[in-house]
Amino acid sequence: MGNTFGRLFRVTTWGESHGGGVGVVVDGCPPLLTIDEREIQAELDRRRPGASRLASQRKERDRVRILSGVFEGKTLGTPILLFVANEDARPEDYEALRDLYRPSHADFTYEAKFGIRDWQGGGRASARETVGRVAAGVLARKVLAKECEAEIVAYVRSIHALEAAIDPERVRIADVEKSPVRCPDPEASRKMADLIRKAKKEGDSLGGVVECLARKVPAGLGEPVFDKLEADLAKAFLSIPATKGFEIGSGFAGTRLKGSEHNDPFTMREGRIRTATNRSGGIQGGISNGETIVARIAFKPTATIAKMQETVSRDGKITRIRPRGRHDPCVLPRAVPIVEAMAALVLADHLLRQKAIRGR
Amino acid sequence: MGNTFGRLFRVTTWGESHGGGVGVVVDGCPPLLTIDEREIQAELDRRRPGASRLASQRKERDRVRILSGVFEGKTLGTPILLFVANEDARPEDYEALRDLYRPSHADFTYEAKFGIRDWQGGGRASARETVGRVAAGVLARKVLAKECEAEIVAYVRSIHALEAAIDPERVRIADVEKSPVRCPDPEASRKMADLIRKAKKEGDSLGGVVECLARKVPAGLGEPVFDKLEADLAKAFLSIPATKGFEIGSGFAGTRLKGSEHNDPFTMREGRIRTATNRSGGIQGGISNGETIVARIAFKPTATIAKMQETVSRDGKITRIRPRGRHDPCVLPRAVPIVEAMAALVLADHLLRQKAIRGR
Amino acid sequence: MGNTFGRLFRVTTWGESHGGGVGVVVDGCPPLLTIDEREIQAELDRRRPGASRLASQRKERDRVRILSGVFEGKTLGTPILLFVANEDARPEDYEALRDLYRPSHADFTYEAKFGIRDWQGGGRASARETVGRVAAGVLARKVLAKECEAEIVAYVRSIHALEAAIDPERVRIADVEKSPVRCPDPEASRKMADLIRKAKKEGDSLGGVVECLARKVPAGLGEPVFDKLEADLAKAFLSIPATKGFEIGSGFAGTRLKGSEHNDPFTMREGRIRTATNRSGGIQGGISNGETIVARIAFKPTATIAKMQETVSRDGKITRIRPRGRHDPCVLPRAVPIVEAMAALVLADHLLRQKAIRGR
Amino acid sequence: MGNTFGRLFRVTTWGESHGGGVGVVVDGCPPLLTIDEREIQAELDRRRPGASRLASQRKERDRVRILSGVFEGKTLGTPILLFVANEDARPEDYEALRDLYRPSHADFTYEAKFGIRDWQGGGRASARETVGRVAAGVLARKVLAKECEAEIVAYVRSIHALEAAIDPERVRIADVEKSPVRCPDPEASRKMADLIRKAKKEGDSLGGVVECLARKVPAGLGEPVFDKLEADLAKAFLSIPATKGFEIGSGFAGTRLKGSEHNDPFTMREGRIRTATNRSGGIQGGISNGETIVARIAFKPTATIAKMQETVSRDGKITRIRPRGRHDPCVLPRAVPIVEAMAALVLADHLLRQKAIRGR
Repeated sequence: MGNTFGRLFRVTTWGESHGGGVGVVVDGCPPLLTIDEREIQAELDRRRPGASRLASQRKERDRVRILSGVFEGKTLGTPILLFVANEDARPEDYEALRDLYRPSHADFTYEAKFGIRDWQGGGRASARETVGRVAAGVLARKVLAKECEAEIVAYVRSIHALEAAIDPERVRIADVEKSPVRCPDPEASRKMADLIRKAKKEGDSLGGVVECLARKVPAGLGEPVFDKLEADLAKAFLSIPATKGFEIGSGFAGTRLKGSEHNDPFTMREGRIRTATNRSGGIQGGISNGETIVARIAFKPTATIAKMQETVSRDGKITRIRPRGRHDPCVLPRAVPIVEAMAALVLADHLLRQKAIRGR
Repeated sequence: MGNTFGRLFRVTTWGESHGGGVGVVVDGCPPLLTIDEREIQAELDRRRPGASRLASQRKERDRVRILSGVFEGKTLGTPILLFVANEDARPEDYEALRDLYRPSHADFTYEAKFGIRDWQGGGRASARETVGRVAAGVLARKVLAKECEAEIVAYVRSIHALEAAIDPERVRIADVEKSPVRCPDPEASRKMADLIRKAKKEGDSLGGVVECLARKVPAGLGEPVFDKLEADLAKAFLSIPATKGFEIGSGFAGTRLKGSEHNDPFTMREGRIRTATNRSGGIQGGISNGETIVARIAFKPTATIAKMQETVSRDGKITRIRPRGRHDPCVLPRAVPIVEAMAALVLADHLLRQKAIRGR
Repeated sequence: MGNTFGRLFRVTTWGESHGGGVGVVVDGCPPLLTIDEREIQAELDRRRPGASRLASQRKERDRVRILSGVFEGKTLGTPILLFVANEDARPEDYEALRDLYRPSHADFTYEAKFGIRDWQGGGRASARETVGRVAAGVLARKVLAKECEAEIVAYVRSIHALEAAIDPERVRIADVEKSPVRCPDPEASRKMADLIRKAKKEGDSLGGVVECLARKVPAGLGEPVFDKLEADLAKAFLSIPATKGFEIGSGFAGTRLKGSEHNDPFTMREGRIRTATNRSGGIQGGISNGETIVARIAFKPTATIAKMQETVSRDGKITRIRPRGRHDPCVLPRAVPIVEAMAALVLADHLLRQKAIRGR
Repeated sequence: MGNTFGRLFRVTTWGESHGGGVGVVVDGCPPLLTIDEREIQAELDRRRPGASRLASQRKERDRVRILSGVFEGKTLGTPILLFVANEDARPEDYEALRDLYRPSHADFTYEAKFGIRDWQGGGRASARETVGRVAAGVLARKVLAKECEAEIVAYVRSIHALEAAIDPERVRIADVEKSPVRCPDPEASRKMADLIRKAKKEGDSLGGVVECLARKVPAGLGEPVFDKLEADLAKAFLSIPATKGFEIGSGFAGTRLKGSEHNDPFTMREGRIRTATNRSGGIQGGISNGETIVARIAFKPTATIAKMQETVSRDGKITRIRPRGRHDPCVLPRAVPIVEAMAALVLADHLLRQKAIRGR
C-alpha cells in the first residue's frame, strides 16, 4: 500500500532501483489530451541538470515508453502506463550492503517493516522511484492546462547556509533553467555551484530549501477539513525522499507576527476580489483564493556520503561503512522537477474534484 | 469530500459551528476496546485549558454522546458515532458577516468553491469542527494502547517570539498539563501567559509553534513512497485550522548541516539496534525506526481579532470590519489536544495497516 | 470498515437497531441543492407501505433530522448528517437471544468476526440500518435531477412462485404505489397480498424478486473494468440484507440464447443512435448506453419466522428457538424504496465521476 | 478511474488489446511470499484450454514478466508489476471498425463516455484485460495459502440449455481440468464440446453459467453493510466481461422457498458449530460462516459472431457488419480461471482486512 497518490487523478508508482524497471500507472486521466513520449522524456531529462553533470557519474538514459492509455497521440481515458527500463545495474557496488544498515537510509526500517529488503540499491527508497512521479506530472500539467492558466515553477531558495535573494512574484522559469543549480538569483547560483563542488570533493553532502509557486490557480480548489489544499501539498512534498519540513505562505516566520500584522486584507484589483498581501500563501481555510500559492520544502543533506561512518550490521555488530560508487553531494537541483510534479498532481486532482461538484 | 481521514481507522467529521451539532463517525475501529463517554468527555474538556478561561468567554459545554458502535462498554467493530449538540448559537453576532469576507478567514474561499456559505460562524472552518477529531483521537489511542506502549505528548514550544527551553526526551505530560498555556518550561509558561493577556487587551492575536512527540512507537510503521509516516503526519497537522508549517526531526534547521553532521549513526543500546542521535526525528525512509518521533507545527496568529480591518463585501465594495463577540487571542494551548489527536489517528491507522500485512 | 459506499458521493451509515439511533453521513454532495426534512421523511415513510401495516406491528416513527450540511434549505457542499433516533427499544424481546444463534441470521458470523455482538436486535444486520440508505437516496436523486432526466422505479416482480405480468417499458410509479405490495400488476398484487397474509398466519416468511428500472440515464456513465455500472449495481443490491441474486438485462435466461439472438442491433430512433432491443439492460461494456437499465434482485424468505427451529448455543449445545415479538413475513414491499435508493447512490456517484473527467 | 480493485490487496490492471502490452500492478501484497514467473505463466496458460484450441486461432504467447516487487524469489511488500507484451497486433483486421459500432460491444459506449476509442480491437473492453487479473490472482492465492486452507475451484455448470449434473461438495479440480470445456461432469462435457463446435461452424456464440466454490474459508471474512462478502463477490464477478447475473447460495431459486424451508439450522459437527444445510452459500449477514461458499455467474453468448448484423456508423447511417478474423464461440472455459482469480482477489483482500482488526 501507499504507492498511490490522488483520489481522481490517481498515480501509482512501482519499481525498484534495480530490477526490470520503474514507472507509473495513471488512472483517472481525462481523455482527449494530446501527449507523446518526447514531452515526457524532456521532463525526465530535467532531472539531470548541468550541476549534476559535474557531480553525479551515473548515466541514466531513462528512456520512457508509453505502454497503454494513449491512442493516435491522445489519451483514451484509460490507465496510462509509463515505463522506464533499468539499464545501469551494478549489483557489485552494493554487495557490501547486504548485511549493513547505512546511516539515515531506509535499510533498517524497510527490514523492520517487511522482514526483507532489496539491498541492491535503495529499492523503493531510491530517488529512482521519482521517475514515475515526474512522468505523471507531465500529464497532470496537461489536465491543468486544459482547464486553467495555472503555472507551476519551483527553484532552489537556499543551499546550506546560503540563501538566495528572490522575489517570488518575479521569478521566471527561464531564469531558473539557466542556472545549473536551478536558482534564479545569478550570484547565489554561482556560489551554490561552488559550495556543491567543494562538498563533492570533501565526500560530504548539502541540504537546502526549494520554493514552489503555483500562479493563477483558480479560486475554489481544495477541500475543507482533512483534504485542505495545503494539507495535500504538505503530504505530497513530504513524500519526496530527504524532505524534513514544509511551509505555506508565512510559514514558521509567520508565527512571530500578530494577527493584525498577519491578516491579508481584501481589496479590489482589476475588478476582482484580491488580497492586498499574501501571507496566506494563496490558500485560506484549505481552499485556493486565486493568489499565488507559495510553499517551501526543506531537504536534509543526502544520507549518501563518501566518508567513513559508524553503523551496525544486521546481526548487531558495530562496524564502519564507506559506500563505494556514485555520490551526489546535493540533490536540490534534481529535486526541483519532482517538487513541480507533486504540485501538479495535487492541483490536477483537486481541479477534477471541483469539476465533479461544480462542473466548471 | 475531504471529510474523512485514514484508510483503515477511518474518521469522518461532520457539523457546522451552528446548526444541530458536530461530531464524528469512526469506521474501522477494532472491536472489544473498552470505552465510555466520560473518557471522551475528559479529552474534550482539555480543549478548554486554564489560559483560555481568561481569554475566551464562550461557554461550550460540549457534552459528548456515543450514539452507536459501543455495547455494554465495549466497541463492537461497527461505526461509532460521537455527537456533541450545539447549544450556544448566537446568530445575531454573525448577522453583520452575511455579506462581508473576514480577512484571512475562509469566508471568501468557501463561497468561491461552493457558491454558498454558512455565514453564522465559521461553518466547517470553525475550530468547533475539531471536536470530532479530539473525540476520535481517544479511540485511536485505545487502538495504540492495545498493541504497543506508544505515548503521545504535545506542548507549546513558542508563542510569538518567545521560545521555551525544552528537552524533548524529558518532557512529562504532567508538566504540560500543569501549565495554563501547556508549556512545560515554567518560566516561559508565565511569560507566555502574560503575552496572551496583553494581546487580549490589545484585541490582537498571537501564533506560535506546537511540538509533538510520539515515544515508543514500534519500528516498521509507515509506508514507502506516498504514505510515508512523516507525509501522513504533515497532512494531518496541516489539516488543523491556522497551521502554516511542519517539521520532522531536524526540520528547516537541518538544511544547514552537512551530511556527515546530519546522519544518525546506528549503534547498539540495551541489546537493540538504535541510532546514536535522532536528527531523523524517529522516521527513516517514511517508516518509524523506534526512536522518538519529533514534529513541530507552526500556527499563525488567529485571524479573528478585535481590531478594525479593511475588507470587501460580496458585491465588491471596499469596507471595514470589526467582528463582535468572542475573541481567543492565542489558540495554541487549545490546539495541543488536537495535535495529539491527529498524531494518534495517523499512528493508529498505520498500526492497523502493518497488522494487515505482518500480523504483529 | 465497509460502512461507506461511493467514491465521490460518499455515504456512510451508522447505528444499531438498538442504542441511540441510526443515520447516515453524506460526504461529497454538491452544494446548492434544495432539501428539507419533509422530503426525506416522506421517503422514509415509504418503508412502511400498506401491506406491512397488516403484517408488522412495530411502530417506527423514524423522525429524521438534518443535523449538518444544510443551511437555509440548501446543501452547503459539506457533510450532511441525517439522524433518526431509536424509540422503540424492547430489549426483553431479545434477552433469550443473548446466547443463541438464530438460524440464517448474522448472530454467529458477527461473533466469529468481531468476538462480540449486540444481541439486542440485529445490530448492524438489522433492516433498520437501511434507514440511512433511504435517506441518502433522496439526496442522490436530487443530484441526478439537477443534471439529467433519469427516473428510477422499482417494484415487486414475484413473490414465492407467483410472478407478475409486467412490461418494464410501461410501468408507472403511480401504479406501483397504488399496490399495497408494490406490484404494478393489479391481479398479481391481490394474490401476493393473500400469500403474505397466509404466510403471516403460518408464522412463515416469503421471498421474491424486485425489478429495478432506471430510465433516461445519459449514455456514458460507468467505468470500464472494475467499476462497471452493472458491477457497482450488483454490489449495491447485494449489500441489501436478504439478497441472494442479481441480474442485468437478459440475466440468467440470456445464457440460453445464441449470440445472434442476444445481440442488440444498433438503429436510429428520433435522430439518436439507439438499440433495437435491450437484452443488454441499458449497459454495454460497463457503461450506460442510454437505454433503460433493467435489473432484478432476488430476496430470500426472511430468516425471522415464528416457528420452532433447531440451533446451537454459544457454548455449542444443541437447542431449539422460536423468536418472540414482531415478524414481517415478506420484506419485499419494504425493500422497494431501498432498492431505489441504492440505484440512485450508484448513478449519482457515476454521474459525478463523469462530470470530473468530461465536465458535462 | 475504475481500474483498481480491492482495499488492502489492491490490483490495478492496465493495457489495451493493441499497443505496448497489458498487465497489472499489485499494491499491498504482503512481503516474504515465494513467487516466480513460471507459476504465473502456468495460470495464464490456463486461459487457453483444450476446447479453445479447436475454437480460437489467435496465438497469444502471453509471456509474463515480473518487473518489480520481487527479489530473490520473494515478494518485497512493494508494488509488483506483471507485464505481458502484445505480440499479435493485426490492425488491418480492425480497420473496418473505425467508424462502426459492433452490436452489444462497448464501441458505442466508450465513445459516449470518453469521446474517443481505440478501435483496434476492444481496447480495455477486450478479454485481454483479464490477463492482469489472472496474474494477480496467483498472488492472491499465495496470500490465502499463507493464512488458511481456503481452496477455490470454478467450473462450467451449463452451456446454452445444457446443464451438467454436479455435486459441489464433490467436485475436484483435477476433474475440471481433465475436461476440455472445464465441466467436471464427463457426459455433459462431451455434449458441451459438441455444442461449441457446432456454434463455431454456424458462426454463432453460446453463453452459460460458471459455478465457483470457495471451501474452507475461515469464518469471519466480509464486512457488515456495504462490503458484505457476497456484495464484493458480485461486484468482482460482474466486472468480468460478458457477465449478466450472479447468485450466492440458493440464489433466484431460493426465492421460491419459505423461510422455514430456507433457513440453515445450526448444528454441531466435529466439535465445531456448523450449519446442517447450506442454502446461505457460506455467507450470512455478509460474513463467511465457514461453510463452502457457492456462487454462480451468468455469461451471455459473446457479442463477437461471424454472422451479418445490422448496426449504425458513427455518423448515424444504418449499415451492416460482419467482423473478420477470430471468433471464439464460447468463452466459458476460458472464463473459469478468471472467475477463480476474482474470487481469490476478494478473499485475499478480506483476509487482510480481518487481520488488521483481529490480528489472526
